[in-house]
Amino acid sequence: MQQIWLSLLCGFCLRLVIFCRAEEGLEFPNFDGKDRVLDISERNYKKALKRYDLLCLFYHEPLPANKGLQKRFQMTELVLELTAQVLENKDIGFGMVDSQKDAKVAKKLGLEEVGSLYVFKDDRVIEFDGELSADTLVEFLLDVLEDPVEMLNNAMELQFTTKLMLSAKHLSLKMNEVNFYEPFMEEPAILPGRPLSEMDIVEFVNQHRRATLRKLRAENMFETWEDDMDGIHIVAFAEEEDPDGYEFLEILKDVARDNTNNPELSIVWIDPDDFPLLTTYWEKTFKLDLFRPQIGVVNVTDADSVWLDMSNDEDLPTPEELEDWIEDVLSGRVNTEDDDESADDLEDPDGYVPADSYESHDPDEEDDNDD
Amino acid sequence: MQQIWLSLLCGFCLRLVIFCRAEEGLEFPNFDGKDRVLDISERNYKKALKRYDLLCLFYHEPLPANKGLQKRFQMTELVLELTAQVLENKDIGFGMVDSQKDAKVAKKLGLEEVGSLYVFKDDRVIEFDGELSADTLVEFLLDVLEDPVEMLNNAMELQFTTKLMLSAKHLSLKMNEVNFYEPFMEEPAILPGRPLSEMDIVEFVNQHRRATLRKLRAENMFETWEDDMDGIHIVAFAEEEDPDGYEFLEILKDVARDNTNNPELSIVWIDPDDFPLLTTYWEKTFKLDLFRPQIGVVNVTDADSVWLDMSNDEDLPTPEELEDWIEDVLSGRVNTEDDDESADDLEDPDGYVPADSYESHDPDEEDDNDD
Repeated sequence: MQQIWLSLLCGFCLRLVIFCRAEEGLEFPNFDGKDRVLDISERNYKKALKRYDLLCLFYHEPLPANKGLQKRFQMTELVLELTAQVLENKDIGFGMVDSQKDAKVAKKLGLEEVGSLYVFKDDRVIEFDGELSADTLVEFLLDVLEDPVEMLNNAMELQFTTKLMLSAKHLSLKMNEVNFYEPFMEEPAILPGRPLSEMDIVEFVNQHRRATLRKLRAENMFETWEDDMDGIHIVAFAEEEDPDGYEFLEILKDVARDNTNNPELSIVWIDPDDFPLLTTYWEKTFKLDLFRPQIGVVNVTDADSVWLDMSNDEDLPTPEELEDWIEDVLSGRVNTEDDDESADDLEDPDGYVPADSYESHDPDEEDDNDD
Repeated sequence: MQQIWLSLLCGFCLRLVIFCRAEEGLEFPNFDGKDRVLDISERNYKKALKRYDLLCLFYHEPLPANKGLQKRFQMTELVLELTAQVLENKDIGFGMVDSQKDAKVAKKLGLEEVGSLYVFKDDRVIEFDGELSADTLVEFLLDVLEDPVEMLNNAMELQFTTKLMLSAKHLSLKMNEVNFYEPFMEEPAILPGRPLSEMDIVEFVNQHRRATLRKLRAENMFETWEDDMDGIHIVAFAEEEDPDGYEFLEILKDVARDNTNNPELSIVWIDPDDFPLLTTYWEKTFKLDLFRPQIGVVNVTDADSVWLDMSNDEDLPTPEELEDWIEDVLSGRVNTEDDDESADDLEDPDGYVPADSYESHDPDEEDDNDD
């Protein structure tokens, strides 16, 4: 029993009553036992849609017969119950939709991916495909409640925008123009056509959704991971609050800016600080030291991977060296299969690419990277 | 039963096996049921200290008789067990020390605060007084494992440092000099005396530990909260990733820089994004809208509070106005008691300070703020 519960607990937080503090003002919420999550059916779904500002529906497979899996299922309900309680005053409804029993409702509502949470706001549906923890879900829903358009009223708030975009020196908008800043890019793309309709803007944003450098975030981590490039991801680990990691991230941004028009390139940047519980799992799965920056290729069907050798402390790759390596990845010269153990290469059990393998490139191909 | 468990679950995360994904590479750890946390006693504590690079001891009150509290106690153990499993390859030991049964050991080890986790590394002890969740604890311990001194090897890594300090334009260190940068400050303090001993540095850092502007962080949130100023905290809520919040934070930094030499002033900055589960609790307790920046005074003995009126969207206070208000707080003119309901002022049920109350200051006092 204890084991089953524990297998589900990762980052729950508690401040125990038994360790009383004299200070007030930092109390984590305790569940009050009230059921707030609705069992959605054909009878009640329309009413629920009307009643709340936001309606969150968790689309799930039927209750499994296996007892252990039933417990896990209950845990999902508990996450939703606690989220519902914490957000009680925010006019948000919560419900569960069974993919078998409620197949008709699911079809009407357009629910497709089992295991996802769908948020209905006004006439729109937003799919949540992130870490299903109360923390992440509450933060996500509070963001959804906020107005999606930010008004920038003064110079300080404009400065904030350049900070968020990280590198844009200044905005140079023209009247009636919409600029699109891809993450980490200095120059915006200007949306074509005038006047722009809502549809034009939505279409443009959807087309440019997959950035050249994407940060993995808890609120949409599974969505990002599922959006692989022909079964692989180029993954970079870099801790932003660490000098090495910061430096490597700056190199990554350089590379991304140089290659922003290459639709075949998208690097998933993971800051290990954002995923403490996955750090050692990644170290074990990928055979890496995540105290240092890393970049590699991960095959998402079997988590097989190959990593650029950056073991020398003083020797992060230059943007040019990184571009050479990325070109080798995109062309298939570096891939996760070549290093797999065979009778011939048992001497390379860790699957690392040798550091000097980049000296052996065809010089003609290296010339291509200089533009 | 379900209710008791739930009362303890806040942010646990799970990715359910029943909702199978085809992609590999993002698996949250499942507890394997193995006991790793030691029951520390006089017999085994010395051996444990020797055996591990890090030893983490949770110092707790005796197991309570109440069944509900016993469950909570078990949850703490479970957090420690999962943390121990996740960090299994890192040579970290975990143990529990009972404040009654193991009083002698606790005294020998210098454990003082029940409910705290003590980390032994080499000859040092580090107290963890943050959110007791596996997420926060794993992140904290991974940080402790890293070398506490960062080597800055090149211009890019130096740039990282100025970024972390947020505002320092450049470092201007002299040979053999140690500079101390308080958070959010542009100018460093130069440690006096030469040559500096380790003790000199430790003493200086301890003296300057309480910054004029402190960010509340999960890893030491209770420590920060307990370090109040005569029973109160000046608390500022500002979401850094929001234009208003960003602007208000810039104003706070200005005020902090102007008053960095005032030992009586320390503002606790809370970014609501870092504490999603506490956001609605704070909104309810303090009667606030945390979609907007806020600043107020909180009495930590009863969580009574009074907040500066900033309800006008266009009207964040200037640094000067904020300094006036802070002066009123420090002098006691603004306090959490005056607004409490009495027969006379039932018309102010929310305890807000009226927006125009700052016009009524003694002009002589306002002159004091101009230096």
